Amino acid sequence: MIVVLKQNISPENKEHARQFLSRKGFSVREIVGEEETILGAVGKARIDQREVELLPGVDRVIPISKPYKLASRELKKQDTIVPVGRVRIGGNRVVVIAGPCAVESREQIMEAAQAVREGGAVLLRGGAFKPRTSPYSFQGLGEEGLKLLKEAGEKYDLPIVTEIVGTDYADLMNDYVDVFQIGARNMQNFELLKRVGSLGKPVILKRGLSATIEEWLMAAEYLMAHGSDNVILCERGIRTFETYTRNTLDLSAIPVVKKLSHLPVLVDPSHGTGLREKVHPMALAAVAAGADGLMVEVHPHPEQALSDGPQSLLPDQFEKLMRDLQALSPVIEREIE
Amino acid sequence: MIVVLKQNISPENKEHARQFLSRKGFSVREIVGEEETILGAVGKARIDQREVELLPGVDRVIPISKPYKLASRELKKQDTIVPVGRVRIGGNRVVVIAGPCAVESREQIMEAAQAVREGGAVLLRGGAFKPRTSPYSFQGLGEEGLKLLKEAGEKYDLPIVTEIVGTDYADLMNDYVDVFQIGARNMQNFELLKRVGSLGKPVILKRGLSATIEEWLMAAEYLMAHGSDNVILCERGIRTFETYTRNTLDLSAIPVVKKLSHLPVLVDPSHGTGLREKVHPMALAAVAAGADGLMVEVHPHPEQALSDGPQSLLPDQFEKLMRDLQALSPVIEREIE
Amino acid sequence: MIVVLKQNISPENKEHARQFLSRKGFSVREIVGEEETILGAVGKARIDQREVELLPGVDRVIPISKPYKLASRELKKQDTIVPVGRVRIGGNRVVVIAGPCAVESREQIMEAAQAVREGGAVLLRGGAFKPRTSPYSFQGLGEEGLKLLKEAGEKYDLPIVTEIVGTDYADLMNDYVDVFQIGARNMQNFELLKRVGSLGKPVILKRGLSATIEEWLMAAEYLMAHGSDNVILCERGIRTFETYTRNTLDLSAIPVVKKLSHLPVLVDPSHGTGLREKVHPMALAAVAAGADGLMVEVHPHPEQALSDGPQSLLPDQFEKLMRDLQALSPVIEREIE
Amino acid sequence: MIVVLKQNISPENKEHARQFLSRKGFSVREIVGEEETILGAVGKARIDQREVELLPGVDRVIPISKPYKLASRELKKQDTIVPVGRVRIGGNRVVVIAGPCAVESREQIMEAAQAVREGGAVLLRGGAFKPRTSPYSFQGLGEEGLKLLKEAGEKYDLPIVTEIVGTDYADLMNDYVDVFQIGARNMQNFELLKRVGSLGKPVILKRGLSATIEEWLMAAEYLMAHGSDNVILCERGIRTFETYTRNTLDLSAIPVVKKLSHLPVLVDPSHGTGLREKVHPMALAAVAAGADGLMVEVHPHPEQALSDGPQSLLPDQFEKLMRDLQALSPVIEREIE
Repeated sequence: MIVVLKQNISPENKEHARQFLSRKGFSVREIVGEEETILGAVGKARIDQREVELLPGVDRVIPISKPYKLASRELKKQDTIVPVGRVRIGGNRVVVIAGPCAVESREQIMEAAQAVREGGAVLLRGGAFKPRTSPYSFQGLGEEGLKLLKEAGEKYDLPIVTEIVGTDYADLMNDYVDVFQIGARNMQNFELLKRVGSLGKPVILKRGLSATIEEWLMAAEYLMAHGSDNVILCERGIRTFETYTRNTLDLSAIPVVKKLSHLPVLVDPSHGTGLREKVHPMALAAVAAGADGLMVEVHPHPEQALSDGPQSLLPDQFEKLMRDLQALSPVIEREIE
Repeated sequence: MIVVLKQNISPENKEHARQFLSRKGFSVREIVGEEETILGAVGKARIDQREVELLPGVDRVIPISKPYKLASRELKKQDTIVPVGRVRIGGNRVVVIAGPCAVESREQIMEAAQAVREGGAVLLRGGAFKPRTSPYSFQGLGEEGLKLLKEAGEKYDLPIVTEIVGTDYADLMNDYVDVFQIGARNMQNFELLKRVGSLGKPVILKRGLSATIEEWLMAAEYLMAHGSDNVILCERGIRTFETYTRNTLDLSAIPVVKKLSHLPVLVDPSHGTGLREKVHPMALAAVAAGADGLMVEVHPHPEQALSDGPQSLLPDQFEKLMRDLQALSPVIEREIE
Repeated sequence: MIVVLKQNISPENKEHARQFLSRKGFSVREIVGEEETILGAVGKARIDQREVELLPGVDRVIPISKPYKLASRELKKQDTIVPVGRVRIGGNRVVVIAGPCAVESREQIMEAAQAVREGGAVLLRGGAFKPRTSPYSFQGLGEEGLKLLKEAGEKYDLPIVTEIVGTDYADLMNDYVDVFQIGARNMQNFELLKRVGSLGKPVILKRGLSATIEEWLMAAEYLMAHGSDNVILCERGIRTFETYTRNTLDLSAIPVVKKLSHLPVLVDPSHGTGLREKVHPMALAAVAAGADGLMVEVHPHPEQALSDGPQSLLPDQFEKLMRDLQALSPVIEREIE
Repeated sequence: MIVVLKQNISPENKEHARQFLSRKGFSVREIVGEEETILGAVGKARIDQREVELLPGVDRVIPISKPYKLASRELKKQDTIVPVGRVRIGGNRVVVIAGPCAVESREQIMEAAQAVREGGAVLLRGGAFKPRTSPYSFQGLGEEGLKLLKEAGEKYDLPIVTEIVGTDYADLMNDYVDVFQIGARNMQNFELLKRVGSLGKPVILKRGLSATIEEWLMAAEYLMAHGSDNVILCERGIRTFETYTRNTLDLSAIPVVKKLSHLPVLVDPSHGTGLREKVHPMALAAVAAGADGLMVEVHPHPEQALSDGPQSLLPDQFEKLMRDLQALSPVIEREIE
């Protein structure tokens, strides 16, 4: 922690600040400059920096330590590669997870699973419990949806990913899913993070709409501190002043996160843009920017979808996307798994 | 719903759009102008507007209906007044809820309760289960904290408010609390909204860091649709590009919400600013802007607080604030309860 | 500048970083902690911090010095009080500047000037050159507007404030205006800042829609570095994700700026909210939060205004506002001038 | 314009609103639904929508017309292709504009021009007048810089692009430059837009840091309304809450703008990310997302650059980028010019 002192701090106040920091367990060293004097306080102690800011004669406090440890590249230099059945997420591969927004019927999920398998997806996604912004919207098929998703995954040999919306569902879902997903609106639902983390299965952690990269990594830290080594990050758009797009897909976050953390990073261009026609260009852009994979909504009959039809690709659009990703992969020296 | 057609839409496509809307249950009427042609589609039907946007020849779709009903001023013209014991929140009064960020010990909460009671607060706040952004931070005393809070509330005749962080705690907490609080990070934890709503007790619903006013009212709608009539909104700062303040306290939201909704609106200047010295001016500003009350952190010994000490007022600062609010109240023609 | 080193930095790279900083004119001191090692580099040298970030083995660089000097409270402890004729802006007074958005005719500006004078305003505002977001909107009366504004100001003994939109108008306007205004969209029009600064007259500097407080103070620094001592800051709302209000009036910026800088700070609740009915509550809130004054749009017949009529107060609404400000002033221990 | 009426509007007020709109030149038609009644008002009239919002019984007003005309895809269906000497910007090509942030010396600009020419750039960029956020930073070589830039452009047969920061420089610069650039901070400097538009030369218009897509297109409209047909848009990052990156490069804006407007869109990954190592991935992502070209900073010796060295590519990094763009182009069915 760097403590910038006011230019006119009295010797007593400076000594007081020094002792306060020492008492809290920091090693303190003073640096006197022409324009400012600072106290450098280093050590493992944790303290609310505002406490120091309130000391008399202190101008500002600047934190140095990153608040996350387990998720940081400093702790673990090599990329984490998350195994899901025979699939590996991370490293040199680019993986594609696909499926409908929500499981709606056996017929729908079977058709979707077949289409995404044929297109080249390696995991099947589909919602059984849907977090909807309106209490009057379709809330998912529940356990019946889980069963259908699992059946489709088994038939087409695709591990399954689905969202968990509350701790109450943890035990039930654990019997079905291969990868848990935590949605953007629950990224700081700490109770859910603790519970899902403790289950030990791979988790896709979506970035909250207004989460900084640091907060996103802190949410990953929660999962990891409670038992999950296999966290997969997923960028899906942040909230900005721009209203033409639902969200602003933050692709610059990819190289930033890859530098700060060893965890794999996916991009969800379907939620990130909210409209089918924008999915293809943004999917290519995401992989070009270095994403370890994509999470894409595909529906056999989007015009009949109970949720998010307008952002779902048709099976032949998905196939075209996969072909273009194949063509793109040598340019960025990666393989499409 | 207003459907703006492209200038060169073919007659077939226009007819197709018309029929699509009729089939979905809307009454459709066309308005032809010099620069644009629109279809006005009115009715109770609910539909993802993007489905219409994808029809050939459609340029844009503009929603008309507000998605919330129970929370809207249209449904209920007069202000909702929430009764909590002998206290009334809303209407012509300005209420002050105060107490420490977290319950830390019997001594601390007793001292805090006495101070806020003497200062003029009408409800006692204090956290027992704390949602912390770091898994390594103090997470609250749990049930022990609830017991202490209740004891302090009874001793000083103050109903108690505390935050619920997960559905697992609902039954336990229901035995203790007078008013539930839902924190900013859980504003769109829909499972929690459903569960707390079903308990029927008053709920303080904090605005999410990046929640639009409409989303905030939709979260209130969730609570109301599941059984709670007594929802109290609480503004506590939104996330913007500015970093000098933790959050940007959005006081203009107060007159906006008062117009859109009949629910009372509080302001939390402690979390909204994050620093003690900013609490006083922003608390006065909030009440001047029309807030129905304040939620303020007060700690007998903030320098020893386990969380948020730097934003907690000292008892004598709280007293000064209450005196200034008393002086302010006739200017805005309200009473400090 | 604080240079945080990577944990595994080699001794050669550390030495290299040290020497780089020394060569650039910094005094360097090393602080070794259990978790991180930092180099503290202090001195008057100016350098793009990213250059240091690119050195091998460097993790991050954290700036310490504030980039503004003349505008800072450190340079000048006491509040700047800006004299405009017999008016003083800053210090213990709260001043109100009022008038129409644009000068439209002699009759209109005379009527407006009389109304605001009677209400208690001390300066008269009115636009002659209007910066409009559409090239097809009314762009102001130009020099004719300046003349009418000056005539009205003289008749009612009110110094005049008007916006300058380009360097081309500097000489012309200098003959007429008492206080220049620089609008939000020109806050980082550095050529304009240089030119207006060099004229030496008082300047009201509006905060840009997406300007951080630091950038705002840097724009003030530009004016001051080029010759103007009398800069008056004016908050008028920032751009956020919220769309119910045009802008989000950032009242927490007031106590922040008052601490960082000695310059007076006004608030413009008319542009900050965009709607007449929100002006009154936000004006009171601004003064309660510590603003040194207000800038309010008042129009004798807003329904006929050529611009911004809907956010202009009627003369009797302005009078009511002034009465309420008078009542508020003893609460905050200030005087309404 | 859609005028949503309050549910309880009186017949008199409804009639009043109708007549108000008719008087302003609109054709009005009423649509009565179960939940709401609306007035559709169409026509060419222009009016501040807030005037209608203030009519008694009116709930809200929703605009329909786009405020820009000349820049819109509706007016002109086919892509605008901007000719600059033998270069064509727009259409099926992807162009790359490169060069140093600022012209610093003959040697530097010559070396830079040679490097970017050899790498495959088709235009040379370089700043002579620099808009700097600090009054104490290097402000450019001025006319001397223009001369050197032109000399380098002629020697290496590259048309030149440079930024204009104020109307005072228009005549001087017009003798030298092939393409004017308007920077992000001047995007709403309307005086500058008018002046540069009237010169009739191609203009690269950078998006403002907090400009919505609509405001950006309105700024293009200003240029076009004053005489420039050849406007080239350039995305360079918007301001969001995220601080790890300088700006958030908004690549989703590309498909949005391509749909709304016929103008070509470039991306500036150098300013958009602020760090050299992020330029390569974001440049590829931009082109994958559909950008018509890039504007990239390249410096022969970035460690000696007087501004923005840390975000400038080295010549060999630029060459590698160009090779990767060549490999990418067939995937997106475009040609690198």
